[in-house]
Amino acid sequence: MKVAGEYYQTIWLDPQDETVVNIIDQRFLPFKFSIESMRTVYDAVRAISDMKVRGAGLIGATAGFGMYLAALNAPDDWKRFKKSMEEAADLLKNARPTAVNLSWAVDRQLNAILQASNPYEARLVIQKTALDIAAEDKEACRLIGVHGLKLIEEISLRKDGAPVNILTHCNAGWLAFVDYGTATAPIYLAHKKGIRIHVWVDETRPWNQGSRLTAWELAQERVPHTIITDNAGGYLMQRGMVDMVIVGSDRTTCTGDVANKVGTYLKALAAYDNGVPFYVALPSSTFDWNLKDGINEIPIEERSGNEVKKITGWFDNRLVEVAVAYPESPAVNYVFDVTPARLVTALITERGICSPSFDGIRSLFPEYSGVLQ
Amino acid sequence: MKVAGEYYQTIWLDPQDETVVNIIDQRFLPFKFSIESMRTVYDAVRAISDMKVRGAGLIGATAGFGMYLAALNAPDDWKRFKKSMEEAADLLKNARPTAVNLSWAVDRQLNAILQASNPYEARLVIQKTALDIAAEDKEACRLIGVHGLKLIEEISLRKDGAPVNILTHCNAGWLAFVDYGTATAPIYLAHKKGIRIHVWVDETRPWNQGSRLTAWELAQERVPHTIITDNAGGYLMQRGMVDMVIVGSDRTTCTGDVANKVGTYLKALAAYDNGVPFYVALPSSTFDWNLKDGINEIPIEERSGNEVKKITGWFDNRLVEVAVAYPESPAVNYVFDVTPARLVTALITERGICSPSFDGIRSLFPEYSGVLQ
Repeated sequence: MKVAGEYYQTIWLDPQDETVVNIIDQRFLPFKFSIESMRTVYDAVRAISDMKVRGAGLIGATAGFGMYLAALNAPDDWKRFKKSMEEAADLLKNARPTAVNLSWAVDRQLNAILQASNPYEARLVIQKTALDIAAEDKEACRLIGVHGLKLIEEISLRKDGAPVNILTHCNAGWLAFVDYGTATAPIYLAHKKGIRIHVWVDETRPWNQGSRLTAWELAQERVPHTIITDNAGGYLMQRGMVDMVIVGSDRTTCTGDVANKVGTYLKALAAYDNGVPFYVALPSSTFDWNLKDGINEIPIEERSGNEVKKITGWFDNRLVEVAVAYPESPAVNYVFDVTPARLVTALITERGICSPSFDGIRSLFPEYSGVLQ
Repeated sequence: MKVAGEYYQTIWLDPQDETVVNIIDQRFLPFKFSIESMRTVYDAVRAISDMKVRGAGLIGATAGFGMYLAALNAPDDWKRFKKSMEEAADLLKNARPTAVNLSWAVDRQLNAILQASNPYEARLVIQKTALDIAAEDKEACRLIGVHGLKLIEEISLRKDGAPVNILTHCNAGWLAFVDYGTATAPIYLAHKKGIRIHVWVDETRPWNQGSRLTAWELAQERVPHTIITDNAGGYLMQRGMVDMVIVGSDRTTCTGDVANKVGTYLKALAAYDNGVPFYVALPSSTFDWNLKDGINEIPIEERSGNEVKKITGWFDNRLVEVAVAYPESPAVNYVFDVTPARLVTALITERGICSPSFDGIRSLFPEYSGVLQ
């Protein structure tokens, strides 16, 4: 998508130097647009764990490129190369626990190595796989947009062209993927088609991915939007000011339970209570085919309570960290929650729209039998 | 309650000079404990509209004392005195729209003036009424504590003395009233009785009354507590980590619909979905006997969107305002929402506990017939 009119992806191989992978350091957004160059797997691990990059698809793509950077720096002895790649895989997998795309991308790279018989071949196949992961992520998001667009068009028709009000939580935008985003892909495609839309952007505490990243993205693409606190969505739905909710997912079970940024469950409850359709947009790489009970089986990352008690904001032309809570009090910081399938209207995937159930998901992805079989 | 071991109320007549009313300027809490002296009705209006004081009971008490300050400064001519008091009443009533205690306290003062036949008598009766409003607020909160304590005791017994986990939203603590608070009164009384409790404190965006004020209050009284984001409550309830929710109210209809800080409705939905009892603690002054449909009839204050996009935090030993959202994006800031009676387990009032229904409320307050009669 565009930044100040110029086209960008969130991660790309440096065109001047193929040993370098570039990312946007999202911690400075929306106040500063900062590009960072990664040269080692440690750079990639830090980019993920320090949240320079975040979001299911982008974490996966960064892990793919992280394995590529590891391969570039691994020993030329084949046995030591493979051992070094396994160590890199462990490092990357432990960078953040909830995102299934992370281990998915790393495992795909480990499998890719099996096609090679020496480090030179391995580096080539790993580079190709990293690029493939990124390209597939982008194409999956575009297709999610194509399918989700129909849902927006239907509401627009029903409203005689009055603006369709869409609520979203966190950032499942292009910044969370390689391009397009998931929750935002139908929004961008609808906007390009001239359908009148307006997006309610949950600020998404404690990191404010919504008011910082989603708002910034939408502004760059000139999509009408309004920032709200996480607390406000229920009020808006009670007053008929939301026509649909679209969120992303960090992990979805083969039964349709959806792990996403903490607070998503509360919005799903409010949508259900007010008859507002609640959609989850996700590429199939986000499905965890081994899990059937989201609440009991999806591990939920807990980060430092300091992320709740302090906030990083823009002051005097720089980022400063200010205290916004009583410093002596303890705080906890659970990052995700699980929205049970019963509250989800439908899943929007790259293959189409399906009901959030084992049978619904299997109808689109018959090649994955899931744990229930 | 106590501040660093010393007893305070939130508002009091200056013992050295009865033309002065003192308040705690809550905008500096929890970082700085700052006392401000009010001398005119304009000071009281600003204290309310600038949120130096906030919370249903304290807004009412401040309005009562605001009328007292107006009376001190009103002309000695009886006709002009009364006209001046009516102007003061209008000023105060318009300081914030949702809190019913505000107009309730002002009207009580206007009625008190009817007992007088000249400004000298009026000033005496207005001073007494202001002190009565504050004393009654304090006593109502204490009684709410006595009744609510039983609910905590029951859960404590059922859990064999393991800590009772109580979630609260915003600050319905003593800082929101003259003393004790409403949602916190049962908590303080349980803690004093030695019952093991632990409070989950919603930070309560955009003003962070929870993580700033409720956390500070509880810490001063040494009640175990943990700050969470507003988004986290659903997750905690899904995991069985919340035994009960207690919140306050800014206005409750005679049918039991509860207006409270925005986001309360989302917590009520999560409590209902997980079988967690959801209590609303309120003095009877918070009932609006003229309304029966909370969602359609309670006016909801909208404040500046800048309160969402910027946050005031403590940095370098002072309060600074930092940007925490994309500055070019618009934001809206609805301050309250309405929790329908069907999601409320019971109301805790100064006269006892009742069901959130016209009949339930009338059983405790038979002297108010309500709009339904």
